Amino acid sequence: MFGAGELGQEIFREARRFGCYYLVAVDRYQGTPAGRIADKEYTFNMLDGDAMRMVVEKEEPDIIIPEIEAIDTEMLVTLEEEGWFIVPNATATKICMDRRLIRETIAEKAGILTSRYEYATTADPEEFTDSVEKIGFPCLSKPIRSSSGRGTYLVRSEEDIEKARTFAIKDARGSGKEVIIEEFIEFDTEVTELAIRHLNEDGKIVTSFTKPIGHYQIDGDYHSSWQSPRVEEYLPVAPEDMITRELEPEPEPELMHELAKEAELKIYEASKKITDALGGVGVFGCELFVKVKDGEVLIYGNECSPRPHDTGMVTYISHPPGLNEASLHLRAISGRAIPSMAEENRIIKPLYPAATHVFKAPIAVEGYSLEYRGIFEIEKIPGIEIYHFGKPFSYHEEDKDVGRVAEERMGIILARGSNALEAKEKAERAAHMILMRSRQCSEWKTQNETTDGRRKHLNSIIGRR
Amino acid sequence: MFGAGELGQEIFREARRFGCYYLVAVDRYQGTPAGRIADKEYTFNMLDGDAMRMVVEKEEPDIIIPEIEAIDTEMLVTLEEEGWFIVPNATATKICMDRRLIRETIAEKAGILTSRYEYATTADPEEFTDSVEKIGFPCLSKPIRSSSGRGTYLVRSEEDIEKARTFAIKDARGSGKEVIIEEFIEFDTEVTELAIRHLNEDGKIVTSFTKPIGHYQIDGDYHSSWQSPRVEEYLPVAPEDMITRELEPEPEPELMHELAKEAELKIYEASKKITDALGGVGVFGCELFVKVKDGEVLIYGNECSPRPHDTGMVTYISHPPGLNEASLHLRAISGRAIPSMAEENRIIKPLYPAATHVFKAPIAVEGYSLEYRGIFEIEKIPGIEIYHFGKPFSYHEEDKDVGRVAEERMGIILARGSNALEAKEKAERAAHMILMRSRQCSEWKTQNETTDGRRKHLNSIIGRR
Repeated sequence: MFGAGELGQEIFREARRFGCYYLVAVDRYQGTPAGRIADKEYTFNMLDGDAMRMVVEKEEPDIIIPEIEAIDTEMLVTLEEEGWFIVPNATATKICMDRRLIRETIAEKAGILTSRYEYATTADPEEFTDSVEKIGFPCLSKPIRSSSGRGTYLVRSEEDIEKARTFAIKDARGSGKEVIIEEFIEFDTEVTELAIRHLNEDGKIVTSFTKPIGHYQIDGDYHSSWQSPRVEEYLPVAPEDMITRELEPEPEPELMHELAKEAELKIYEASKKITDALGGVGVFGCELFVKVKDGEVLIYGNECSPRPHDTGMVTYISHPPGLNEASLHLRAISGRAIPSMAEENRIIKPLYPAATHVFKAPIAVEGYSLEYRGIFEIEKIPGIEIYHFGKPFSYHEEDKDVGRVAEERMGIILARGSNALEAKEKAERAAHMILMRSRQCSEWKTQNETTDGRRKHLNSIIGRR
Repeated sequence: MFGAGELGQEIFREARRFGCYYLVAVDRYQGTPAGRIADKEYTFNMLDGDAMRMVVEKEEPDIIIPEIEAIDTEMLVTLEEEGWFIVPNATATKICMDRRLIRETIAEKAGILTSRYEYATTADPEEFTDSVEKIGFPCLSKPIRSSSGRGTYLVRSEEDIEKARTFAIKDARGSGKEVIIEEFIEFDTEVTELAIRHLNEDGKIVTSFTKPIGHYQIDGDYHSSWQSPRVEEYLPVAPEDMITRELEPEPEPELMHELAKEAELKIYEASKKITDALGGVGVFGCELFVKVKDGEVLIYGNECSPRPHDTGMVTYISHPPGLNEASLHLRAISGRAIPSMAEENRIIKPLYPAATHVFKAPIAVEGYSLEYRGIFEIEKIPGIEIYHFGKPFSYHEEDKDVGRVAEERMGIILARGSNALEAKEKAERAAHMILMRSRQCSEWKTQNETTDGRRKHLNSIIGRR
């Protein structure tokens, strides 16, 4: 596995429940979340293709899982040509980490609606401004290659244009100068649909689906996600507390139910088309926008991850054991079966409504010897679990030009509830009970929130702080 | 952790979901189920106390978990005296692996009913016969020290006496000659109650309980277990398919419900007394017999494991994630919280009825390069999970004197069902779909069954074979 972070950690944990795997982890530092579970750990930067080749030739893996985006995708393509099995396939991995290629795959190959978009380069301020103006305000500026929302900027007015350009330069992966300027869709709900391409008993690829996962981001990075057997709890219009913007008056329950049903089916349909266009086997996280316009449900394709998705960690608690997104990925890529629920169109049903909420290392808390407070108080709450990634240190990336700091994700809270909103509220309250400190920072720090974040959090939480 | 088998495997897997542990595994061979998840593996025989001391002094563990019974318990006592923390405590570990000490603890210190018993030595055939005759037929002969039912023999008549004595000599741990001859209780149900002693927020030890776990053994070794939120499905009288003997006509549903309620409360009460007598923190597996006599429920204490229990593996699927017996043990021994469910008298409720059934390496299948067949067919069944321990080889112990071979446990099937019996049936069917072969045995072999086993298995299965 190239990349051994928290998503890989659960893949390897699940592999240890089906004891036939020999696990090799590669990452930039020793003692990664997945590395500590592996049989063997290698440490190097995966933008170094030669190092990747060295470990592949030495270990001769049956399956190569790219777990992160910061990877030499050209080397993956070469290795695949030589006969190595890359998950889901080298081309899909390359497409999904390039905002231009994935956008074109979604719009042109899969035929799914997308927001309007223009390309530009950060090297040319005039061209950049032109593209922004073509799309109109508000719009989003994103580097073609970056991960976890890095470099993404919401351009609200003319004044933001220069900030957005600087930000994209800073956070682009490698030396990429290209950006995509996207129309800002006033969506009703944003979801991740996990589509799983896997073999059936005849050796043919079929697609299974999880129930759509609701979520929100802060600074373009996943912050909270939720799922329920009853999708009308968040589809197509998420309850006010779940997303940020002011809502139109909510539709009547009966209409809501009808719309949710329509949205759900269209979500599966769109995910099927996108993942068919990408090919291979494994879990894909399809990021989609849902918008109700003139009584009709529209699905917009945004991005797609050719692997388990941050927001999909809710399946660690919502799905039956052995069927969370990590185990589904593992089954799919190993040619193992995924239970067929023919009567339900291959839907893996959650057991109950559930949610996740991240907890991060506050800005001041850097370095090694991390300590936590609040654990006992959280763990005694029924229906709550702390999933701590066990990262040995915390590290922050500050961007002085736009005054924003990315905080390191240390773990998540998993919560069950009687409905999705209650679960989300529980997870959020628990996450905000965590205090942290480190060797460099002896003072206990609370979970920070950006201005943007406060709006997405519950009133009760905001009131208390 | 001393001993790194399948029960330890899940403790370490759970530890990887709460990333603050550094894990050291010790066992007799390299690549054990828990060893492959550990940060570090040591390989030696744990009857060697000096080797144990060496690793303790080198690693300086905060917590020492004895995971097996084949261990130098005197060294554990010494280490505890020197200030190391042994789980649950060194004395309890010593008591629980000695059938005389645990029997006396249950009967005298905890004041719980036990079957009548006599001690004898295998060195003296006359004394052995005397003891058997004092207890009467049928009775059980067990070495004072052995694990997983090894050396246990059901003495039905005079002809069995010599066989039982030879068997006890063969399978006793170390050079132990002592045996215990126990009255064979015609119980209605045999259960394991997992009692968890852990700290509450005031730093005081409290006891939480799982719902009682039904199970049966073959040749004294766990074979299938089940659990349900509705204990009247198997308490106090297990359905005919679940146990071996001919049943009296089953009581009326209403009376059954009343009896089950009474049995459940008495099970908690007895487990509390037994574990209070043993002390310390952690999960204890209390093996109890339930018998209805003259309309009253009697609870007999049998044995107790000072750690998670084979039969408790059903909680891997029945309990919410983060609360199975392994995670409960981990929380208890680390001073972490266990959700308080005050309204329910600290009961951790299963989510749904569930069951387990072992699969073993058939006698002919020995050695390395194990291969399995039937995996795809099993994994496609909804509500089924295969938990494969990943043991690198299989090994059999044959006892020619009594014509019995202990088969190696390779994994278990976990199943959900609409009731406990259905779950058990699903698990059993799935387990018997597994075929195995190895480098030494190129022919595919099915799961073997002893004569005793056939009676405990479902008719449908027996019919097919």
